This record gives sequence, C-alpha cells and structure tokens, in this order.
Amino acid sequence: MRDREKVFIEELTQSKTSFGIGDDGVVLGDFVVANDAFFEGIHFKREWGSLDRIFKKAFLVNLSDIYAMNAIPKFALLTLCIPKDFKEARELARIFSAIAQGFGVKIVGGDTIVGEKLHFSFTILGEKGKKTLFRKPIQKGDFLAYLSPRSPLNLSNKQAFGKNLKHLKNALRFDQILKNSRFDFPILYPKMILAFNEIAKAGMDISDGIFAELARLAKLNSIDFKFFQPKGEWFYSPEEYQMLYALGAKKLKKAQNLARKFRHNLIVFARAKRGKYKKIKKNWHS
Amino acid sequence: MRDREKVFIEELTQSKTSFGIGDDGVVLGDFVVANDAFFEGIHFKREWGSLDRIFKKAFLVNLSDIYAMNAIPKFALLTLCIPKDFKEARELARIFSAIAQGFGVKIVGGDTIVGEKLHFSFTILGEKGKKTLFRKPIQKGDFLAYLSPRSPLNLSNKQAFGKNLKHLKNALRFDQILKNSRFDFPILYPKMILAFNEIAKAGMDISDGIFAELARLAKLNSIDFKFFQPKGEWFYSPEEYQMLYALGAKKLKKAQNLARKFRHNLIVFARAKRGKYKKIKKNWHS
Repeated sequence: MRDREKVFIEELTQSKTSFGIGDDGVVLGDFVVANDAFFEGIHFKREWGSLDRIFKKAFLVNLSDIYAMNAIPKFALLTLCIPKDFKEARELARIFSAIAQGFGVKIVGGDTIVGEKLHFSFTILGEKGKKTLFRKPIQKGDFLAYLSPRSPLNLSNKQAFGKNLKHLKNALRFDQILKNSRFDFPILYPKMILAFNEIAKAGMDISDGIFAELARLAKLNSIDFKFFQPKGEWFYSPEEYQMLYALGAKKLKKAQNLARKFRHNLIVFARAKRGKYKKIKKNWHS
Repeated sequence: MRDREKVFIEELTQSKTSFGIGDDGVVLGDFVVANDAFFEGIHFKREWGSLDRIFKKAFLVNLSDIYAMNAIPKFALLTLCIPKDFKEARELARIFSAIAQGFGVKIVGGDTIVGEKLHFSFTILGEKGKKTLFRKPIQKGDFLAYLSPRSPLNLSNKQAFGKNLKHLKNALRFDQILKNSRFDFPILYPKMILAFNEIAKAGMDISDGIFAELARLAKLNSIDFKFFQPKGEWFYSPEEYQMLYALGAKKLKKAQNLARKFRHNLIVFARAKRGKYKKIKKNWHS
C-alpha cells in the first residue's frame, strides 16, 4: 500500500514545481509551514480512546513539527470530516480552541464537511526562528542523540522513551491504549526543544521510530552510523514525538547540561561515519 | 447534516482563539492563506469524469479563493488520500505539477495516505497584494455585479454564466457531466480578477451560487438588496467560480470598460439598500 504514496511523492519531488518536501515543515517567507493528516482507520481507531485524546494527539503532532524546525506555532487551519453519526461537534470545537489557546495558536480557517469517517488534516504556520533547524547537515563525527524524560520515580539512566512499540501493538491487538503512554497523548516540551535547537547541527521529530528516521537522515546526508548500544525497543518505538538531534562533539557537554535542566536524559546512541546505512526493519505503518 | 458543520464552525468562531473564519482566505503576515477539501462522494463522484478533470477543478477552486482576495498563489500543500484500488498515483502527481507550474505555484509539502476513498485537501499560500479584497464593506447604494464570459458565438448580453445548476442536476441524476461546462472544469481569469479587485469595494468567489453568497454578504454588512432582474437560473447556479463584486456608483463605468477589455459582460443585478435580506432557497449542498 505504501508504494502508491511513494510513487506520488517521488514524482512530485522530481518535478521542478516542488521544493521542501521531506522535512517536517517548509520555510515560506517568515513562516515555517507543516501539514499532517489523521484518518480514522489509518492513524487511529475511535475505540482507542476518547475523542479529546485522539484530537489532542493529532494537533500536538503537528505543533511538534513546527517546534522541530525551531519555529513557534502561530496559526492553525483544519480540514475536518465529521461522520454522519457524530454528535460531538461542539465538544470537538471546544477541545480545538482550548489546545490552540494553550499553545498561543490562532485558529484561522479550514473546511468542515460531513462524510463517512472522522478525519483531521492540520496546516500549522509557525513564526520562523533566527535559526531554522533542518535534517542536515550531519557530518562524520557528529553525535546522534535523543531525549528521554526522567520520571519522578526514575532518575536513573533507565529510559522512559521507547515504550510506544508495546503500546501500539496493544492498540492494534486489543483496540485499547495503555494509560499514560506517550503514544496516546504525546507530551511536548517546547522550551526544551527550542533550547536544544540552538545548539544542534540538525534535527527532526521522531514519528516513525528512530530506525526509520535514521534511514532518512542517512540518505539525505550520505552517511552511516556507528551505534554505541544494542538496538532494542528504543530503536523501533514509533510516535514518541521527541526530537532526534545531530550534535557536534564540542556541544555534547552543553547538551547534557541542558537535558538535566529540563529533567531529561540525553541518550547519545550513535556517531555519524562514512558509509551507506542499511535499513534494518520496515516501517510499522506499511 | 449541515447542522454539525454549522455547530462546529459557530463554536470556533465564537472562541477567542479564532479569526478570519468566513472569508475565502485569511491574511497571515505577507500571505493570504486558503484551505479547501474535496471529498469523493461529497464534492464529486469518480464516475463524473476523468481524474485530471476532478483534480484540476479542486485545485483551481482553491487558487480562485486566493485571487478572490487579490493575492497571487505562490505555494501549495496537499493532503491526499488515495484509495486502495487506485492505480493513477503517478498520473495524479504529474497533473498536480503541470497545473501548479502553469500558475507559477510551488508544491511545498503535504501528507499522502492510502485509505478508502479519494480525497484532496489543499492549502494555498498567496502573496498578498497592496490591497486585500474582503467581503466588506458594502454600503447602501453600492452595486452588485458578476462577470459572465462572452463566448465567440455569443457577444450579446445572453449569459454564459448560470448554466451550472443544470449541469449539477444532470451530474447527480445521471452520474455524468455535460461537456464544456464550467461546473466540470472552472476557468480562471486571474488577470481580469486582479484588475477588478483594484476597483471593487468588496468581493468574493461565487461557489454556492449567488443567492447563497448574497445571504453571507447581507449578514456580514447588515444590508439588503434591490434586484434589477428576475431571479432565474443565474441566481441559483452553484460552482461558477466567477467573482461577485460590490462596486461604488462612481466605478461602474470603469468596470464596464474593464469587462469589455477581458471579453466579459458585467451583469449589474442588484443594489445594496437598508433592510434585512431574506434567504430564499437553501443551499443545494445540504
């Protein structure tokens, strides 16, 4: 199924009429713009949880793309398809307003239709920072790292990151979400992300899992990676919505301090080296 | 069915987190941004015509919203849902590129997924003109007019505008589109629109038919209209994608000359007056 998407995107990317496809967002004038769709039956099932959680997730995932490029989300447009049997339109609007307000985002339009299933498609415009963070450059010798929140009970190096693979498998098997998983309700740390963006060489949002994102970074930067730790759950876990960073060797100390300040662990798991990266496992989405 | 959309939009519009909802697009920084969705089974049936015609229409309708506010379309994002049985992904990408290139629009991202039906949702960013044309102000004494293209065979006052009601009824009844209708393939006249935008007081894209758009203008400007001609087909015909203009009395002569220059007829059909507008017929969409 993924082939059709691939063909479409490849064809567009090769055409002279496109640019910026492949990053989390695209720089247009003073804005960074990102666009993402959440479709019932593809990205979520309604049985997985309450409407507000599903919608919150979809919205936060999009805001996350904007922060990932070091921009501040300012405006949101929503294409909404409401199923015929849907009775919570007012509730949905309130949820949307409340989250938008919480992040200082203005809702500026969109399109609302009644159809068969529940779909959301967001377009978010963010105010470009002085520096924009892209997925390149990453060069030989740069360190690859992600951030994992320290839970109050877990101040050791044990990772809170990487549990979503289990949550997703459970969701697909039992049609339910484990409580308090980031998979159900991603937590954004905008201040921390913006601080890290300033010292990182490159970065991106982890949505399909580190293994899948690394393949993208390797291709884009023509590099390979040397791993410091065995590839476990942390490597395949999707939808963590944490950042994956490339850091120059000189910034590692500063990055460790920043992570501590924001009560996170900085997990430095690989270093860029010359070579061709071998993708190990297919994206779970396909 | 329309009630659910209405509830959602009303709730959002009333919230402090929204602005700009209700116009064809919204002014954000140096851009005018518009967003529109085309869903199979709601806005079109695949039996109605070839894929390129359906997609072209969806794209042009969105470009039209940008021109309507006196901006020049520059960037497009697309959320695309491709059905499982869909074999024309490459063709679709080529069509998208070709139209974008024709209008000088860069394709800058989006999201592509495989689902049950064919859906498109466009977000277009246009470069704001010196003047932005909104749906207000319209005051007592202003003239309401639309433009109708002169066909080579029809240089009289007989209207090429207003035939889409018949085409739509046919499409719904027989699952086919009459050839050469604007309903099937709207024609944009960007140069003409941009020239008229400069002299108009207010304006908007006619998508749901003049009767429906007038209701919006009446409410927004707290006015009523005195009609110069009986309400026929021209009044109800949807999806004409021509502009509806409010012109000050002093600009009428100039407007007539402009229309002639672009081989169109300017049909001045009403004048704004004090009072409350009575909506005569419901939107065919509901």
